[in-house]
Amino acid sequence: MPSLLPRPKTFLPRSGYFRLGPDTTVSAPEELFNEVAWLQSALRPATGFPLPERDAGTIRLTVSEELGPEAFHLDITPERIELAGGDAAGVFYGCVALLQLLPAAVYRKSLVPEADWSIAACLVEDAPRFGWRGAMLDTARHFQPKHDVLRFIDLMAMHRLNVLHFHLTEDQGWRIEILRYPRLTEVGAWRRETQLGAGEDAPSDGRPHGGFYTQDDIREIVRYAQQRHITVVPEIESPGHVQAALAAYPELGVSGQQLPVFTRWGVNPNVLNVEDSTVEFFKNVLDEVIELFPSPFIGIGGDECPKEQWLADPHTRERMAELGVEDGEGLQAWFIGRLAEHVTARGRRIFGWDEILEGEVPKTALVASWRGMTGAVTAAKRGHDVISCPDDVVYLDYRQSELAEEPIPVAIAVTVEDAYSFEPVPAELTAQEAQHVLGGQANIWTEYMDSPRTIDYFAFPRLSAIAEALWSPVERDFSEFEPRLADHLARLDAVGVEYRHAAGPLPWQQRPGIPGRPSSRAGRDAFIEQLVANIAQP
Amino acid sequence: MPSLLPRPKTFLPRSGYFRLGPDTTVSAPEELFNEVAWLQSALRPATGFPLPERDAGTIRLTVSEELGPEAFHLDITPERIELAGGDAAGVFYGCVALLQLLPAAVYRKSLVPEADWSIAACLVEDAPRFGWRGAMLDTARHFQPKHDVLRFIDLMAMHRLNVLHFHLTEDQGWRIEILRYPRLTEVGAWRRETQLGAGEDAPSDGRPHGGFYTQDDIREIVRYAQQRHITVVPEIESPGHVQAALAAYPELGVSGQQLPVFTRWGVNPNVLNVEDSTVEFFKNVLDEVIELFPSPFIGIGGDECPKEQWLADPHTRERMAELGVEDGEGLQAWFIGRLAEHVTARGRRIFGWDEILEGEVPKTALVASWRGMTGAVTAAKRGHDVISCPDDVVYLDYRQSELAEEPIPVAIAVTVEDAYSFEPVPAELTAQEAQHVLGGQANIWTEYMDSPRTIDYFAFPRLSAIAEALWSPVERDFSEFEPRLADHLARLDAVGVEYRHAAGPLPWQQRPGIPGRPSSRAGRDAFIEQLVANIAQP
Repeated sequence: MPSLLPRPKTFLPRSGYFRLGPDTTVSAPEELFNEVAWLQSALRPATGFPLPERDAGTIRLTVSEELGPEAFHLDITPERIELAGGDAAGVFYGCVALLQLLPAAVYRKSLVPEADWSIAACLVEDAPRFGWRGAMLDTARHFQPKHDVLRFIDLMAMHRLNVLHFHLTEDQGWRIEILRYPRLTEVGAWRRETQLGAGEDAPSDGRPHGGFYTQDDIREIVRYAQQRHITVVPEIESPGHVQAALAAYPELGVSGQQLPVFTRWGVNPNVLNVEDSTVEFFKNVLDEVIELFPSPFIGIGGDECPKEQWLADPHTRERMAELGVEDGEGLQAWFIGRLAEHVTARGRRIFGWDEILEGEVPKTALVASWRGMTGAVTAAKRGHDVISCPDDVVYLDYRQSELAEEPIPVAIAVTVEDAYSFEPVPAELTAQEAQHVLGGQANIWTEYMDSPRTIDYFAFPRLSAIAEALWSPVERDFSEFEPRLADHLARLDAVGVEYRHAAGPLPWQQRPGIPGRPSSRAGRDAFIEQLVANIAQP
Repeated sequence: MPSLLPRPKTFLPRSGYFRLGPDTTVSAPEELFNEVAWLQSALRPATGFPLPERDAGTIRLTVSEELGPEAFHLDITPERIELAGGDAAGVFYGCVALLQLLPAAVYRKSLVPEADWSIAACLVEDAPRFGWRGAMLDTARHFQPKHDVLRFIDLMAMHRLNVLHFHLTEDQGWRIEILRYPRLTEVGAWRRETQLGAGEDAPSDGRPHGGFYTQDDIREIVRYAQQRHITVVPEIESPGHVQAALAAYPELGVSGQQLPVFTRWGVNPNVLNVEDSTVEFFKNVLDEVIELFPSPFIGIGGDECPKEQWLADPHTRERMAELGVEDGEGLQAWFIGRLAEHVTARGRRIFGWDEILEGEVPKTALVASWRGMTGAVTAAKRGHDVISCPDDVVYLDYRQSELAEEPIPVAIAVTVEDAYSFEPVPAELTAQEAQHVLGGQANIWTEYMDSPRTIDYFAFPRLSAIAEALWSPVERDFSEFEPRLADHLARLDAVGVEYRHAAGPLPWQQRPGIPGRPSSRAGRDAFIEQLVANIAQP
């Protein structure tokens, strides 16, 4: 079998070869114009120029209602290629798979006349296991210029991932232009310096860091992703992880004091106050976000919100009494609830981290289970849809091995094999409850990734393994995956992805002397267990 | 006049608009398949999918022998667009100009349905003043990943620049895979740390830095550039600026001692020895380089080679006597001469910095005048072809203003207006001598540009001004340029170029506390005058 990744449901070899050449043409119904254009562009390293469209092309793209959503049927004979998709997305994934049947040089950006542009005849039938195959990209801790985000989207498409969870706001930076509140980016889009490494004693680099996306940039990113069948799900953090917003608009905070955009990592005590005006502010922000992002889901954050500032503030305590809530968790649920009402009224659903299960939130809320799988179990049993992204399996900021050379090693080692073992559906769920698990995603937090080069190192090839775990049938075998991954790395080389090599970081991927904070599996398990005690099922 | 940049020779407005829409089609002879493909791709933000090719398209591309090389004639009426080029390059530049007649949103990477995709009818006739319109990119001091180089090539094409001088080797890093000598990249492609800022006392960052291009990467870059009518001229430094090579192969050095890849900036005493085996080594390197780069010119460096190590070494002094050379300059000329013979025998010409004028070099050698214009005058008078790149006008690592906020401010302030004043032909030359000036280029040295984001800041918009100086008629007026540049910045915004804003660096483009080394114009002039005394015309 050629090294298809993700692994297909069905692969049947045939005899002979289809050869890409001057006689190759493409045909497709008009509704597939986007997929044809993508294929024409993707094949240019082989063909030199866009494949001509003909009424009966040697490559034929069609939509077949017999196939399910995102499914495809790719039939290659020496004479022609017939690609049928259950929908346009299915056709697109068939095109993406077709590319993997060619030499890796097809992933280069200019003509490669040296390569043998023939495809061994075969039949591939495939369809994804999950409808949400995601990656979260944190553009707040370290900003990635727009063109790097577009490149990341291309890498996602190459792996048939279909959701970009776009983490846009944080204590350390606000990255999306909001027309009504310009100071969010004027003030909030940059910080004075950055903590270098992990731990409270870690030094700072003394270098300002910043950047943001204009609304035109956002529209471009969203449409670029759409053309690759990727939904961009925005996330605006609240009521914690908001210090960049507080720096811009101190009146949103509990104390009202002027704060700098945060320059350290870790959970931050400064949270939003619960005034009606603050709720209104975030509703207005979300209105602009909703206008920019057609995603059915709008992320409102909800994670790691400390309650101390609220509880210590007499005015907030009065407000709690007024609202009839008894504790911090209740107040957080009240706040999230207001945003949820607003988002729901606009025909969308909120998407939040598993901490939102600490209170009652609307059943339409989609829950991202990140502190292991406890949130997934609780949410599904309480009737919420779930995205699984357990930190110990798919957090791509976690160190990649036990090697001391890993750059800024934090948390536990999550190897490629660990990532490949990703199973989004908790065994504790009944078949019916399991229906609530829409899929999973890898999370790329960028505290320790200060450039796209570093993101390459942390994301790949673990993200390749996760992409297969989210697409392919549940029965998987790492030893079968490994040789396919080796071939896949040649594709990443052709793209220019600076992935982690199996032997460890290259010398220039290391960060000697920058403190990490590695932990053991046992230590991490104990810590997480304590964190999720208040949302665990009895 | 719409904001064409570079400014065209002829622009005549006409009445009415040509509207890009579902009926727009393109036609061209087969020889222009590359230009059609580029235009189809470039217009996708407007059209949504590649313009269909028809026998008589509403956009017609042709080659007209009546026009000169690189010239074009672009005739836009409400009914159709007729674009004739003197050659394929001329057609390409006409396409590039056509894009500038559309809203800046055309430079985005996905469909922009909001924009008004109409073009005011007009006639544009244009041809470049110089045949060498270049930019030198230093990938050795700081490595740029391949995809960032491709992006830089796109930015060059957008400005009708046609030569990428690719600076691939340095004391601080060797960036090109040489199959015969793998240690050049195994050892030479990374350094342990990097000097932070200018000056001997500047601290180091303690962070390894590295990266290199495989030969497949190089082929991809070369062809990608070719498709945009850009020649990539490689440069392998010798006999100085070689410490990365010495780290890999100590036997190439005068002392033979093991050296690290250099972690500091500035001129380095460690140079190549002048053994036959070392000449042979570099000939073998150049053979692989010549195979990879079809450029008629092959850069061999030649700049800033200190002679002290040679003169202090008894063995080298014996060698000098044996070779019949009297001084360090003579020895340098001997070394360059051997490489020149080799390059010439393979049908190419050497390209070197103006220090090669310190001795006799073959008349076919192309000289880059960087220490002001003295080298240009001397070279042209001695019968050499010349590329002008005077440091005080086109060195884009020099600070951009007198503001204290400029990041790591070095040398003199070179403003956009200074860059716009670039005149590649020295007034001292006769008309016949002036024929030797093939053109000019901007040089982007990356000691203080540690990421593509920083390169954006230093390069733009000065490179936009230089592109016009190299293309447009000699009579220019900065006050006429300024408003066109303002419109052009909207294009750079759409591309996502983080150029320097007129008001100065954004907070996150600053490098507080990192030492620069600013100098005054007078100080710089005195310094350069002394440097070039030995090549100045009597």
